[in-house]
Amino acid sequence: MSEYLSYKRKNLVPYTPGEQPKDMKYVKLNTNESPFPPSKKAVKKAAEAAGRLNLYSDPECRELTLKIAELYGVEYSNVLVTNGSDEILNFAFMAFCDDKSPAVFPDITYGFYSVFADLNLVPYEEIPLKDDFSINVEDYLNINKNIFIANPNAPTGLILSLEDIEKILKSNPKNIVVIDEAYIDFGGESAVCLIDKYKNLLVTGTFSKSRSMAGARLGFGIASSELISDLNTIKYSTNPYNVNSMTLSAGIGALEDEDYTKRNIKEIIENREYVKKELKALGFSLTDSYANFVFAKHNILSGKEIYLKLRQKGVLVRHFEKEKISQYNRITIGNKEQTEILISKIKEILEETK
Amino acid sequence: MSEYLSYKRKNLVPYTPGEQPKDMKYVKLNTNESPFPPSKKAVKKAAEAAGRLNLYSDPECRELTLKIAELYGVEYSNVLVTNGSDEILNFAFMAFCDDKSPAVFPDITYGFYSVFADLNLVPYEEIPLKDDFSINVEDYLNINKNIFIANPNAPTGLILSLEDIEKILKSNPKNIVVIDEAYIDFGGESAVCLIDKYKNLLVTGTFSKSRSMAGARLGFGIASSELISDLNTIKYSTNPYNVNSMTLSAGIGALEDEDYTKRNIKEIIENREYVKKELKALGFSLTDSYANFVFAKHNILSGKEIYLKLRQKGVLVRHFEKEKISQYNRITIGNKEQTEILISKIKEILEETK
Repeated sequence: MSEYLSYKRKNLVPYTPGEQPKDMKYVKLNTNESPFPPSKKAVKKAAEAAGRLNLYSDPECRELTLKIAELYGVEYSNVLVTNGSDEILNFAFMAFCDDKSPAVFPDITYGFYSVFADLNLVPYEEIPLKDDFSINVEDYLNINKNIFIANPNAPTGLILSLEDIEKILKSNPKNIVVIDEAYIDFGGESAVCLIDKYKNLLVTGTFSKSRSMAGARLGFGIASSELISDLNTIKYSTNPYNVNSMTLSAGIGALEDEDYTKRNIKEIIENREYVKKELKALGFSLTDSYANFVFAKHNILSGKEIYLKLRQKGVLVRHFEKEKISQYNRITIGNKEQTEILISKIKEILEETK
Repeated sequence: MSEYLSYKRKNLVPYTPGEQPKDMKYVKLNTNESPFPPSKKAVKKAAEAAGRLNLYSDPECRELTLKIAELYGVEYSNVLVTNGSDEILNFAFMAFCDDKSPAVFPDITYGFYSVFADLNLVPYEEIPLKDDFSINVEDYLNINKNIFIANPNAPTGLILSLEDIEKILKSNPKNIVVIDEAYIDFGGESAVCLIDKYKNLLVTGTFSKSRSMAGARLGFGIASSELISDLNTIKYSTNPYNVNSMTLSAGIGALEDEDYTKRNIKEIIENREYVKKELKALGFSLTDSYANFVFAKHNILSGKEIYLKLRQKGVLVRHFEKEKISQYNRITIGNKEQTEILISKIKEILEETK
């Protein structure tokens, strides 16, 4: 820390991204990436855009914004495109939260919400999940705070129904409710259909997971045009050219290849259910994940032990030190080959520790 | 504005990027883009990276960071790569400025500094340039505020010497001094050589101008490892994967093709001096710009008139409404053909208004 750091930042604890070790080649099941390459159309369009990099990207991201609006059946003015969905989430904290309008989210959820709150000097409360890791909807009714919920939740993969989300929206008309749908394409129902009815709803999404574009950094928010207008005020005061032109073009290409996306989603869901079944047979208990990962605890071996032994065997999964979930690992669902390796390595570990 | 916007944001006036009209094809000399395509090596590397988009980009941007460090003769720990240089500038406001540690910059400079200050609730002072638009160095000595200076300055193109920058650094040891070198490759001397001597110096740069990569969004900061560490705290609390993998690869490719960059810079400088000479002969007065643009005022026609008439004739230049510079236009230096069109259209306008 330098002597110049603002007093406002002295206690800021940054987010820790999943490890990316370079000592050997791993089966990488730790950051919920897609095992499938991006759509060929996305790659082609990105490569074409690379030839025109001397010109600025479109700050309005017009063509891609229109395509996302079309996909979700909303208007152009309901969509804002960002540099990953982390950016739209941060914009939401910047636009709508402050010392008088605090934030609330589950104690077990995407670890970045609390970092965004700290970064923006926003007071926040973490509401404990139930013992089964589900969200107790009652806890979020009439709460008078800005609510951030990942649906499906991470790292549990559990989902909320639209009925429950509506209850939360309806009972908090003076505050925004952000539904972070990074994983929605693998299960659960999108809340985008509610944006006309609830002016306080912001739905966020990403191209990182189901569309195999984590490396492109492409996220978006969908909401009433009033909320999007506020978020645009933040965007144009932060980084008007926030999304580069290759990523914009890749996003357009990906949306022109929805069959490919659907096929990939189908395979991930099949592999997920296979992994669930296999792990259960090997003595694991799992949440009923609807995402592209499972969340699993063994009945004998500790979460840390499994994480470390898998790592030694060349398989990376995500382990969290937080006590309430330290017996679990979050394991990304890969392709069939990665899935087989995962299961066989876990079998080896269980053999070795008998 | 929605009812949910934070009271902190109600008066926020966003930055206005240069217009990008789509009604016809313009000779676009309004956003200081390069007229030359990006390096073929950059394009090739970006296209290759597009095929691996399913994996996250390297949050440490390790390979590119090393290359930039090598280019400038500094250490890896002295460099931070960002989503355009707007991002590193915003990070500097976030990290080092606050209500107790305000900012200061010239009244005529890059229009985003004041927006960043407002966004981050940082009080700021704008110090008037001298009548010839040069910076009065005395105004910045012992000022006890964080100083932001574009060198060359925009939209004037005027430069400060390293001696003057050192005076400012030396007399403000308790505050940071940001030297924004977006345009340094077209003239002037980089202050990077001073980072070991002055722990309070942050130099920022961009690949948008001399390296023809405006659409890729690639900026960087160079400073003491202590300042870079603080800026990394902000980065990892904002968007750890801030730069996408295609842009990282394109940046590496561009740095492997420095001969191309140097050739392009040479042509821009030649064209700039040609434009200066021609415009002077046509009754313009100009600042002695060292950037990839000129800043020009006609002795009869108003700045607005020239801007509008050029626009009608298919040439876009940048006009600012701010009174002190409203008689001027900032005109990007294009390739030879664009330069000829500019001069011939101005001649037409002068003929028509005789």
